[in-house]
This record gives sequence, structure tokens and C-alpha cells, in this order.
Amino acid sequence: MPDPLRELRDALRDFAAERDWDQFHSPRNLATALAVEAAELLEPFQWLDEAQARDLAPATRAAVEEEMADVLLYLVRLADKLDVDLERAARSKILRNAEKYPVERARGSSRKYDEL
Amino acid sequence: MPDPLRELRDALRDFAAERDWDQFHSPRNLATALAVEAAELLEPFQWLDEAQARDLAPATRAAVEEEMADVLLYLVRLADKLDVDLERAARSKILRNAEKYPVERARGSSRKYDEL
Amino acid sequence: MPDPLRELRDALRDFAAERDWDQFHSPRNLATALAVEAAELLEPFQWLDEAQARDLAPATRAAVEEEMADVLLYLVRLADKLDVDLERAARSKILRNAEKYPVERARGSSRKYDEL
Amino acid sequence: MPDPLRELRDALRDFAAERDWDQFHSPRNLATALAVEAAELLEPFQWLDEAQARDLAPATRAAVEEEMADVLLYLVRLADKLDVDLERAARSKILRNAEKYPVERARGSSRKYDEL
Repeated sequence: MPDPLRELRDALRDFAAERDWDQFHSPRNLATALAVEAAELLEPFQWLDEAQARDLAPATRAAVEEEMADVLLYLVRLADKLDVDLERAARSKILRNAEKYPVERARGSSRKYDEL
Repeated sequence: MPDPLRELRDALRDFAAERDWDQFHSPRNLATALAVEAAELLEPFQWLDEAQARDLAPATRAAVEEEMADVLLYLVRLADKLDVDLERAARSKILRNAEKYPVERARGSSRKYDEL
Repeated sequence: MPDPLRELRDALRDFAAERDWDQFHSPRNLATALAVEAAELLEPFQWLDEAQARDLAPATRAAVEEEMADVLLYLVRLADKLDVDLERAARSKILRNAEKYPVERARGSSRKYDEL
Repeated sequence: MPDPLRELRDALRDFAAERDWDQFHSPRNLATALAVEAAELLEPFQWLDEAQARDLAPATRAAVEEEMADVLLYLVRLADKLDVDLERAARSKILRNAEKYPVERARGSSRKYDEL
């Protein structure tokens, strides 16, 4: 089974190469675009209460899905440009979080909760 | 070969279940956390010129890598909570972008450039 | 009575001039710094429910106040660099919002609500 | 001379009261809206180089000005809801920054530069 993160990376490489867009894909530009897309993903939630946010209208849900795709695409592209192995970085972070938030101390507490 | 997006999804499910943290992982909370992490990823670039941003100091690079991991983890967790297939959404978006930015018209132009 | 927005603008001009920091205060750098500070302002709220967010712990409240100051300072500095009259722009926006959300139609509705 | 921050605060109070919108203006909602607007302010700069960012097209400039107004309005509204004196907070922050970045050490350096 193919690895979707690598396939997306390759598709984005081709996409940029065909359009001569590598010149715009500096790390800073991509990090900026990623932050802008993440805010656009947050935007539909800004006035919703918890119940509304769990039951999005179909058009809102489609918009949210598209913004999530944008975030992933810029993240994959930035990782490619910075030569970061996203999967390895994510696995390392889960391990660090597991050390930082031991099960017995973290259970059900949002107090010290400032990470996933 | 295993699919890293699914493996990360499952690891995050276990992580939250063990700590009874599902109660905090509402879509709105996760979208907020994702936007905060994306801004933290942008932060090291804010005063750097292009050349500096391409040649990050090792400590900065490690911080950037960790923020990228955070963005991916919150994105995967949000996708799980909203039942979004991230890989499918990303592939769809690439196809839409290909239609929106045909090779012959988009080549080398940053003018109409507002997407990946 | 003096105008605080002008006084802050002048204080920031002096601050940057004394440190030779105008070279870093490009519009793009300032807009980036402002977005980063706005996310830092949001960060303490990310896991709080409505009741908790209305009754911040003293240390959190102090942090929020400082992030609000940062947002205002970068906004005033950016306005100075772009020669934008912040007060006039804000008054114009209130008038536009009043036209967009007439009292009789907007009352109590969060449906069409996507602006202040 | 009237104080524009207080006048804007009062105008926004009236605006919300007339529309019964106080119910939506929780601190968390306002902090979220502010972060979203700050990202929208950053968006026009995301693919621009320094020279382009200093010489914005008229339509882009108008959009930037409107986003700056939005940021100020949400900031003033949030300060009102949290009972924060924005002017005082901003003056305090300038003093703290002056201590943190003494003129003789900070001159012309972007190295330790991480604040205004």
C-alpha cells in the first residue's frame, strides 16, 4: 500500500514544477500560507457553540474539509522544502507528549493540558 | 506498507482514550489548537529574510520540525472527529487547483497566485 | 486630551529609531508579527469552556492583557508604516457593518453573523 | 480632544446592544475572531516580496486597511469585555520592551529580536 504523505509530496512537486512555482515556495511563504489556511479553517467555528460545531451545515462542512486539505498540502510542501520527515516528526512528538503527560497524572484533567 | 495517516489517527485515539481527553477534543477546540500551532510554526520566520529562512539555525530548525508535527497531529485528530478522509480531501483539492490554475496560464506568475 | 493612538505611534517610532529597527519593520514582517501575537492571545482560551473563559486565573489574565498590548502595538506600527489612519478606518468599518447588518434584520441572530 | 479608543468602545457597545449581539461576544469568541482577522490581514502579503509589499495595489491596500480596522474593532471589544485598559497595557508593554532591549545592546540587531 502506498504512503499518502509521499504521494502528496510528489504530486505537489509536479504541480509546482509544471507551473514554475518553486520560486514562490520559500519556507517563509509556505509557513505564512499554512497559518492563513489554518485561520480560514477556524473561521467557520468562531461564532458556533459546541453543539453547533458538532453538527455543521453541509456547505460549512465542505468548506471545512477543503481548508483541512489546504493545511495538509502546505504542510507537506513545507516539509519537502525543509527536508522534514513529517511522519517521523509526528511519531516523535507523540512519544514526547506521552512522557510529558503520564496517563496516571493527566487523566481527565484540562488543567495542565496544553498539548494534544 | 502501512498508511501513516491512519496509524497516527489510531495512536492519537489511544492517547486521548488513555487520558480521558476526548471530552476536550471538540472540533472547535481542535481547530483552535491547530491555528495556534500554525502561528507558532510561523513565528521563527517572522523577522527572517529569505536567505536566513532557508538556512535555519539547528535549534530553530528543531523547533520548526516540532511545530510541524503539532500541526499534523491536530489536523489528523480533527479529521478523525469530523470523519474527514484527509488523503481524499487533499487529492480532490489538487485536482481543483489544477483546473483553477491551468499550466499554460499559471506558469511563473504570482499574479493570480493565491493557492498552492 | 491627547490621542492615545498617536501617542503610541510616536513612542513606537522613537523606540525603533533608537534601536535602528526600522529595517526590520517592513509591512510584511509587521503583519506576520501581528498574526503571531493574535494567535498567542487566543492560545490561553483554546481548551476553556465559556464559563472558564469568563473567569480567567490572574496569571492567565495578565498574559492575555500583555498579548492584547502586543497586538495593539504591532497594529499601530503597521498603520504608521502603511500610512493608514486607524481611527478613520475603524469608524468607516462600523458604518459599513451598520449597513450590512440592519438592526431589524440582525437582532439576536447568529445566522448571518460573520462580522462584529 | 476625545479619546478614539473610548469612542470606538462606546460605538461598539451600542452596535452590539441594538442587535442583541452581546450573547455572541464572549471573550473566547472575540479572541477567535481577532485571530481570524489578523490572518486575513496577513493573507495579501503571503506571496509578495519586500518590494511588492511596500507598494500595494490600490484594491489590496483598501482590503488591508479594512482588515486592520477589523483587528482594532475586535481588540477594543475584547478589552471592553475583559475590562482591560488597552492604552495602559500598551504603555506598560513599551516600558517592559525598553528594559528587555536596552538601546546599546539592541541596536541594529535582529538576533535577539523577538519583540517590537
